Amino acid sequence: MFISFEGVDGCGKSTQARTLAQALRDQGRQVVLTREPGGSPGAEEIRRLLVEGAGERWSAETECLLFTAARRDHLERTIRPALDAGQTVITDRFADSTRVYQGAARGTLREMVDRLHELMIGVEPDLTFVIDIDPATALARGQARGGNEDRFESLGLGFQEKLALGFRALAQEYPDRVRLIDGSGSVQDIAARIRAVL
Amino acid sequence: MFISFEGVDGCGKSTQARTLAQALRDQGRQVVLTREPGGSPGAEEIRRLLVEGAGERWSAETECLLFTAARRDHLERTIRPALDAGQTVITDRFADSTRVYQGAARGTLREMVDRLHELMIGVEPDLTFVIDIDPATALARGQARGGNEDRFESLGLGFQEKLALGFRALAQEYPDRVRLIDGSGSVQDIAARIRAVL
Ligand SMILES: Nc1ncnc2c1ncn2[C@@H]1O[C@H](COP(=O)(O)OP(=O)(O)O)[C@@H](O)[C@H]1O
Ligand SMILES: Nc1ncnc2c1ncn2[C@@H]1O[C@H](COP(=O)(O)OP(=O)(O)O)[C@@H](O)[C@H]1O
Ligand SMILES: [Mg+2]
Ligand SMILES: [Mg+2]
Repeated sequence: MFISFEGVDGCGKSTQARTLAQALRDQGRQVVLTREPGGSPGAEEIRRLLVEGAGERWSAETECLLFTAARRDHLERTIRPALDAGQTVITDRFADSTRVYQGAARGTLREMVDRLHELMIGVEPDLTFVIDIDPATALARGQARGGNEDRFESLGLGFQEKLALGFRALAQEYPDRVRLIDGSGSVQDIAARIRAVL
Repeated sequence: MFISFEGVDGCGKSTQARTLAQALRDQGRQVVLTREPGGSPGAEEIRRLLVEGAGERWSAETECLLFTAARRDHLERTIRPALDAGQTVITDRFADSTRVYQGAARGTLREMVDRLHELMIGVEPDLTFVIDIDPATALARGQARGGNEDRFESLGLGFQEKLALGFRALAQEYPDRVRLIDGSGSVQDIAARIRAVL
């Protein structure tokens, strides 16, 4: 089983991915908890190029190539070996983030993203949880976290709002795979909604 | 005018690119001399991921994505602005290197490389010089150079021989654009052959 968490920065993806991994481990399952961009040593190095620095450091096209390079490494070195060994993989972001972020940056990029995905990745999660939350609340949560990985957050609230709309559209586009989860309430409230779907 | 130099490691690309740039500047032309992977600040950062470290650090597919990301940045930030300003661009390697290196690593990769190029780059040089030289001589020259950018050279002579064949095949595939230059003799001998074609 290959599960991904998606949604705007600060919506609670990492928190819920961790919580779900723990719940499944408590049931005796072997779980690999991973994240994007990153999730393998090579992909983590590419991650640094992506998440640090100025907002205009890369064009949307170059950014998309770097995300796809990191994803390919992540898939080859972490995700596929774990799935082949019968383990459950939970990833904090996957290809849907690229679809939504690039699509929000410029609508015409979505086709390029899809062709690149088809050519170089070709795999989707079995199940994707989009944590749906007011972008202003999410952004404030994310900023409170600190750290220097703020390149996307620095793009501002208007961009986060586009992203939130993009993630909702994705749930409509892939109704079998992508589930929208109400992200309000406590960590345990949200975790319970996720477990109800599973 | 957009000119590239191609060929195996140590064949004399950098030397001849520099020599040609100087000759054209002496004629009063404005010349941008650049290289791949690299040639723009972002692409040079991606270059470090590509040229350092172990030979198996990246799969051929991931490597190809990283080269294409670096090339896209190089094209957007260095090559296209210079061509738009009416300058001559001379680059030490371009997309042909990816075609030949990936194709030599695994023949079936060539189609992937071409589709990626078409989707994300779409530009060819006006003229490409392949410096054709015995791979053993080239490898010895390259190794004598030292430095830590030896990830491809560390793949050994058998691989260099595959590359030399790949570059010759490229000249047959693109007869109008790619010219095979005899790489034997002195730097000035080779430079004279290049200028005769120009
Ligand atoms: N349900 C929640 N209520 C309040 N704060 C939360 C909740 N879920 C997560 N947080 C906090 O919000 C911040 C962002 O959560 P995180 O899981 O890191 O989001 P993401 O991974 O989507 O960016 C963290 O500081 C986290 O502790
Ligand atoms: N015609 C030549 N004869 C002998 N040595 C050469 C010649 N051309 C270049 N070299 C030397 O060979 C080495 C490799 O040349 P270089 O231009 O760096 O090759 P490349 O860029 O193709 O790897 C350098 O040390 C260079 O000075
Ligand atoms: Mg997170
Ligand atoms: Mg060189």
